[in-house]
Amino acid sequence: MPAEFSPHSGCILIWPHRRDSWQNGAYAARTAFAELISIISRSEKVTVCARFEDYDEARRLLPAGVRVVEMSSDDSWARDVAPTFLTDRNGAIRGVDWGFNAWGGLVDGLYFPWDKDNKMARKLCDALDVDSYDCRDFILEGGSIHSDGEGTILTTEACLLSKGRNPDMTKDEIEEKLRQYLGAEKIIWLPCGIYRDETNEHIDNVCAFTAPGEVVLAWTDDQSDPQYEMCVRSKSALENAADAKGRKLKVHKLPLPKPVCITKEECEGLDDLNGEPTRTQGERLAASYVNFYIANKHVIVPQFGDENDSRALEILRTLFPTREVVGVYARDILIGGGNIHCVTQQIPNARQFRKDG
Amino acid sequence: MPAEFSPHSGCILIWPHRRDSWQNGAYAARTAFAELISIISRSEKVTVCARFEDYDEARRLLPAGVRVVEMSSDDSWARDVAPTFLTDRNGAIRGVDWGFNAWGGLVDGLYFPWDKDNKMARKLCDALDVDSYDCRDFILEGGSIHSDGEGTILTTEACLLSKGRNPDMTKDEIEEKLRQYLGAEKIIWLPCGIYRDETNEHIDNVCAFTAPGEVVLAWTDDQSDPQYEMCVRSKSALENAADAKGRKLKVHKLPLPKPVCITKEECEGLDDLNGEPTRTQGERLAASYVNFYIANKHVIVPQFGDENDSRALEILRTLFPTREVVGVYARDILIGGGNIHCVTQQIPNARQFRKDG
Repeated sequence: MPAEFSPHSGCILIWPHRRDSWQNGAYAARTAFAELISIISRSEKVTVCARFEDYDEARRLLPAGVRVVEMSSDDSWARDVAPTFLTDRNGAIRGVDWGFNAWGGLVDGLYFPWDKDNKMARKLCDALDVDSYDCRDFILEGGSIHSDGEGTILTTEACLLSKGRNPDMTKDEIEEKLRQYLGAEKIIWLPCGIYRDETNEHIDNVCAFTAPGEVVLAWTDDQSDPQYEMCVRSKSALENAADAKGRKLKVHKLPLPKPVCITKEECEGLDDLNGEPTRTQGERLAASYVNFYIANKHVIVPQFGDENDSRALEILRTLFPTREVVGVYARDILIGGGNIHCVTQQIPNARQFRKDG
Repeated sequence: MPAEFSPHSGCILIWPHRRDSWQNGAYAARTAFAELISIISRSEKVTVCARFEDYDEARRLLPAGVRVVEMSSDDSWARDVAPTFLTDRNGAIRGVDWGFNAWGGLVDGLYFPWDKDNKMARKLCDALDVDSYDCRDFILEGGSIHSDGEGTILTTEACLLSKGRNPDMTKDEIEEKLRQYLGAEKIIWLPCGIYRDETNEHIDNVCAFTAPGEVVLAWTDDQSDPQYEMCVRSKSALENAADAKGRKLKVHKLPLPKPVCITKEECEGLDDLNGEPTRTQGERLAASYVNFYIANKHVIVPQFGDENDSRALEILRTLFPTREVVGVYARDILIGGGNIHCVTQQIPNARQFRKDG
C-alpha cells in the first residue's frame, strides 16, 4: 500500500447530500467541498461521485476538468467507502473492497442502512477499470489505517478492536488480515484517537505519516482536557514502536484547536431522519488538524477559526517543504463528523500501464 | 465520425429494466443482452450502464472483464442515448451530447419522462473521461445516422423531418447541423425506413454501410407487403446518390424476415405503466437483419427463427470477410422496440492518447 505522500494518479470524493449529516440539506458543506476539490484538481484528476438527483448541481459547481460520475451513496466519506488502492507485484493498481457497516453496524454504527455505501468500492473499481480484491467479510474503513509505503501500517485499538466491526476476531487475526491484504510487515497500534471521535477513533484524525519514519501526532498541553491523557498514551505507543524497517519513529506534535462545539443554530440545520437527532447543542466535535489531505502538489489542512490554525500550517510547511500547504475553512465538513482526509481517497500512480480487455 | 467498421476501443450498452418495454420485468431480454455482451467483449472493452437496483444482478450475469457502471436510465437504447463519438482534429475522442426526447417528445414519443436518458450522454463522456460537445438543443438519436467514415452520412427523411423532433428547422438547417457536428460533407437521405418502426423509421434498421461506397438495404420481394414500396423508394434514393467522395453506392439487398408479430402471451408479459398498453396482440414488429452490430472481430446479427436467418448471415459473411458473423436470437430484444444495433454504441479508437487532467 503506497503512502499518501507518494505520487497520485487521482482522488475520489463523494458529493454531500445526507440531510442528517450535513447542515441545510448539505448546501453549507458543498461550498467547502467545492473549494477543496478545486484545489486538489490543480494537481490530480478528481472523480466525484454524485447521486442521480445531485449530479447536475455537482457538475455545475465543479471545475470542468473534474470527472463527475453518477453513483448512489448513503453519505459522503470517500476515505471509508472507496477502495483502498494498492499496487500489485507488477505495479498495477488494485482496489481492496472492505466490508463497510457505517462505523459499527447495529452495535454503534452511525446510520442504517449502509448498503449503498458498502457497494461503492466495487463500483469504483469498475468505474476506474482496476481489479478489486473482495474483502467484504472483514469490516474496515480507509480512515482507520495509514501506510508509510514501506510495510508499516498505523492504526488504533479503539477502532479496530471495537465490538461493532469484527468482534469474533482476535487482535492477531486482525493483524493477519492487514498483513495479507495490505502487504504489511509491521502494524503499529495506537491505543486511541481523538476524544469523542464517533468513528471509534480513527487513526486519520490523530496521527499521520509525513515521511517514512516520521509522523505528526495531534497534541494538547491542556491537562484538564480528557484528550490530554489520550495524547500521552498515543505518544508513548509511538515512542516504543519501531517500523517495518526497524526505525524508531520521529514524532512531531501538531497542536489541536480549542474544543469546537456545535451551536444551536447548526443543530437546527440538521434533519432528523432516524428518529433521534444526529447532534445536540454544545456537543464537542472531533476537530483536528491531522485530518489533512496530501495531494501531489498541496497539503490541504482543515481550519477552524482557531488561534492554532496558522501554527498548524507552519508546522506542516516545515514537514512538507516541496508542497504548498493550504488551509480550507472546514467547520461545515467537521459538522458532518469528519474532515478533509475523511472525504478524500487517493489513487496511487501505477508503476506500469494496465493492459485492457 | 468514424465508420462503425473502423476499429473500436469499446462499446456501451444499458442493462434492460423497463417493465413496459421488456417482457417479464426485462428478465427475458437480459438473457439475450448477456449473450450479446459476452460476444462483443471478446474483442472490445464493454461498458454496461446499470441502475442502482440492477447493478448487482448485471455484475453477476456479465463476464468479469465487462465494466458495469451505475447510471440511471429510462430505458436501454444505448445507440440513441449514449454520445455519438467522433475523433477531433488531433485524433482524440469526443462525444456529441444530442438532445433526446424519446423519439418524438409530446408529439409521438414512446414514453414520458425521458430526463434520465437525456442525461446519459454527458455522464458517459465523464465516465469515459472524454470531452463532450453540448448539442442538446438539437434532437437526434444515434440510430438515425450512419457514417462511412469518409464524410458521408446516411439518414431518413421520415425520422429527421418528423414533427416530434426539430419541427422548426428546415431540411437544409438539419443538414447544416449534421455537417457542423459530424464533420459531414454529404448527407444521403432515404425517404423512409422499416414499416411500423416506431422510431419514425431509423436508418439503422433499414440500411447500413458495410464499407466505404457499399451498403446493405433491407429488402422484400413480396409486393403485397407495404414494406415493398418503401424498399423500392429507398433503393431508388440510394441508386441516385453519390457519396462524399463522388462514388455511386453499391447496394446489397439483405432479405427481411417474414413479418414478426407479437403474441398474446408476450403482450401479457409487458406492464402497463403509462395508462395504455405498449403493444397489442398481433402487432407487427420492425424486424430486420440490418440491425446488426459490427464489433472489432464479429458482426452480430439478429435472428428471428425465420427461414431467412441463415441467408442473412451468409450475405453478411461475404461482405465482412475478416470478421466472424454470428447470429443471436433476438426476439426478446425486438419486442422492446429495436434490436442489436439499437442497444449498442461503439467508441472508436483514438488516433492518439488523450492527455489527462
